[in-house]
Amino acid sequence: MKRPFRNVPRMTLHPPYRLLMGPGPVNADPRVLRAMSAPLVGQFDPVMTGYMNATQDLYRQVLRTTNDATLLVDGTARAAIEAALVSLVEPGDTVLVPVFGRFGHLLVEIARRAGAKVATVDAPWGQVVDPQAVADAVRAHRPRVVAVVHGDTSTTMRQPLADIGAVCAEHDALLYVDATASLGGNDVRTDDWGLDVVTAGLQKCLGGPPGSAPATLSDRARDAVRARTHVEEGLRTDADEPRGTVIGSNYLDLAQVLDYWGPRRLNHHTEATSMLYAAHECARVLLEEGLDAAVERHRRAGAALLAGVQALGLAVFGDPAHRMHNVVAVEVPDGVVADAVRAAMLDDFAIEIGTSFGPLHGRVWRIGTMGVNARKDAVLTTLAALEHVLRAQGVAVPPGGGVSAAQEAYAA
Amino acid sequence: MKRPFRNVPRMTLHPPYRLLMGPGPVNADPRVLRAMSAPLVGQFDPVMTGYMNATQDLYRQVLRTTNDATLLVDGTARAAIEAALVSLVEPGDTVLVPVFGRFGHLLVEIARRAGAKVATVDAPWGQVVDPQAVADAVRAHRPRVVAVVHGDTSTTMRQPLADIGAVCAEHDALLYVDATASLGGNDVRTDDWGLDVVTAGLQKCLGGPPGSAPATLSDRARDAVRARTHVEEGLRTDADEPRGTVIGSNYLDLAQVLDYWGPRRLNHHTEATSMLYAAHECARVLLEEGLDAAVERHRRAGAALLAGVQALGLAVFGDPAHRMHNVVAVEVPDGVVADAVRAAMLDDFAIEIGTSFGPLHGRVWRIGTMGVNARKDAVLTTLAALEHVLRAQGVAVPPGGGVSAAQEAYAA
Repeated sequence: MKRPFRNVPRMTLHPPYRLLMGPGPVNADPRVLRAMSAPLVGQFDPVMTGYMNATQDLYRQVLRTTNDATLLVDGTARAAIEAALVSLVEPGDTVLVPVFGRFGHLLVEIARRAGAKVATVDAPWGQVVDPQAVADAVRAHRPRVVAVVHGDTSTTMRQPLADIGAVCAEHDALLYVDATASLGGNDVRTDDWGLDVVTAGLQKCLGGPPGSAPATLSDRARDAVRARTHVEEGLRTDADEPRGTVIGSNYLDLAQVLDYWGPRRLNHHTEATSMLYAAHECARVLLEEGLDAAVERHRRAGAALLAGVQALGLAVFGDPAHRMHNVVAVEVPDGVVADAVRAAMLDDFAIEIGTSFGPLHGRVWRIGTMGVNARKDAVLTTLAALEHVLRAQGVAVPPGGGVSAAQEAYAA
Repeated sequence: MKRPFRNVPRMTLHPPYRLLMGPGPVNADPRVLRAMSAPLVGQFDPVMTGYMNATQDLYRQVLRTTNDATLLVDGTARAAIEAALVSLVEPGDTVLVPVFGRFGHLLVEIARRAGAKVATVDAPWGQVVDPQAVADAVRAHRPRVVAVVHGDTSTTMRQPLADIGAVCAEHDALLYVDATASLGGNDVRTDDWGLDVVTAGLQKCLGGPPGSAPATLSDRARDAVRARTHVEEGLRTDADEPRGTVIGSNYLDLAQVLDYWGPRRLNHHTEATSMLYAAHECARVLLEEGLDAAVERHRRAGAALLAGVQALGLAVFGDPAHRMHNVVAVEVPDGVVADAVRAAMLDDFAIEIGTSFGPLHGRVWRIGTMGVNARKDAVLTTLAALEHVLRAQGVAVPPGGGVSAAQEAYAA
């Protein structure tokens, strides 16, 4: 289809006020947005390489790791997922994926595109995968990589990880964890849990815009990536002996990207400077509050929202023992059109709540309390609006019940 | 290597003043930096999808095309190069690459990683590839894709493209052009020249930060991408019959990304919202000036810089008939240490000029006049500083000669 030139709207972008209480992206911290307006410096300016080093230091703390190989991937969270898998997985390798929601399926798909044979251990939506079942599958399939989502916003479940690292190490499998939705609002312990590669994004509990993806690799994972065949990029050569297949991507080749972030400073793509400024400020905001304090703030906000929606008489989806702190899946009452409620929340209150995927589509709303929105006023405002909208849709809801229950939860 | 936790520098980023006169990134337009601090809206908020549509319209104008399939890739320019090649090239396909500098080698490397058999037509550094040689090679190799750099900053050469499109169309080859370094400062005519896919980045003549990459696909190219096997992403299925191999990347799968930018609005990765704001503002700034006026401004700045360095007695590298407007390769005089001059320019004048790659390393400086820096004052300031630094290094340079020559060129 061809598009005739038309009078292009040359408007200044002037986004309306929104309280983003969905599963992400959420409102970015204004400090982070301001950080992006700092002027650029050159790619190899000592100031810039200093900023890169400082950002690595900050994300080592955020990810609770001493991994030297800690960096940003220049893209959204999904870019880092793919960078991890395409860099670790050689064609024909077996990858084991515990699947308990949509983003587990995404790991399966990305691993297959990288040429993996994929085995899965599946849990029904709303539950997590039994760590013992993962251990059994590791012994049965002897995978090269175990790839697992930590917090899957599609179901709001948080997979227990602490017991998986040991079995992976014992069987020489590398453990990759997608912590996009959990990092900053739930405990993520890269080194204590024996996670080999962890990736995330800014647009959930880190309170930044999408477009930069923190990642860390254990020495074992970094060595595995480095053992892939080195590619002559342009005029670049590497004297190392090739030992594995070529990584299928240049842009997401973590061996090359690490050589850019490391002391060799080999030219790769130009670092996305303004997004690095954003990622740096996200980490600074988080560490000033303290990791434990931020997780506790997310826990309290999530608990208050949960108490509130339950007090409104709404059921909540998923195993209560394994809920993430930062998103609640609220079941849509019988007779209510899910999207009509979302539209009224947005149109009348400028509050965005989330729809759902796959088997949950139309059956649950996903309400997030993430980043700067893990706040009492955001929780109470959302509950007050939801009460009004539900009543207008003919649902019998106790007046003030949601707000009062959330206030009590906060007071507890 | 393990890194012990250390007292992380939690400094506010406060980049020093820099005049970035290298081959990119250059100083971003302050309007573009400010645009990024606008608040976020949700991924499927009608406001956001409206912004996406507006951005598509703007880049159709910037790229001089009526292609419906016009969008942003969420990464730096290199992400869009890889998206184009991995989406177009099936394993075993022949790709023909005219190579006349470093970035041609990059196209070779990326095409090979995508599984292509690559044929090249090579020109020495400092020259372009004879379009007749490209036509002959198309007839000889019958490639599926011809991939060519428009302006290669490594040599400052601009490849003539106007005659290549017809021969590609005649032999059913898709013509991909990397216009990263040329777009906005040199004439780029997607439809008039019969270019099937064009990609770019923000950080050169568009005057933005790196991290978002405009791209456009002709209907023929879009159909070729759509004919690749569709992947079930998570719970997504597509009824189309598979006709080609699966695209090796999820993040850079243009079939899926186009379904996100198109009317189906299928969920893919979350659009990098703040970088979209930047890309939108870059296009607005450019179109307010006018494409022809912007190209002419770059032409004048480049000509003035060229006159200035020649008046300083310096030789200029590369075929004068095929120089890009926006970067000049200045030969390093005998006995001068190239990096010492660059360091003095940066340390004493806060002006960054570029080093060079490969056969030119240490032999030329690359001085760019791009985006907001394609300005008379930036050119004169750079020449005045360069004169001082060269004299301090013992080079006999005529006092004021560079600045005067540039002023005369501007007055002409």
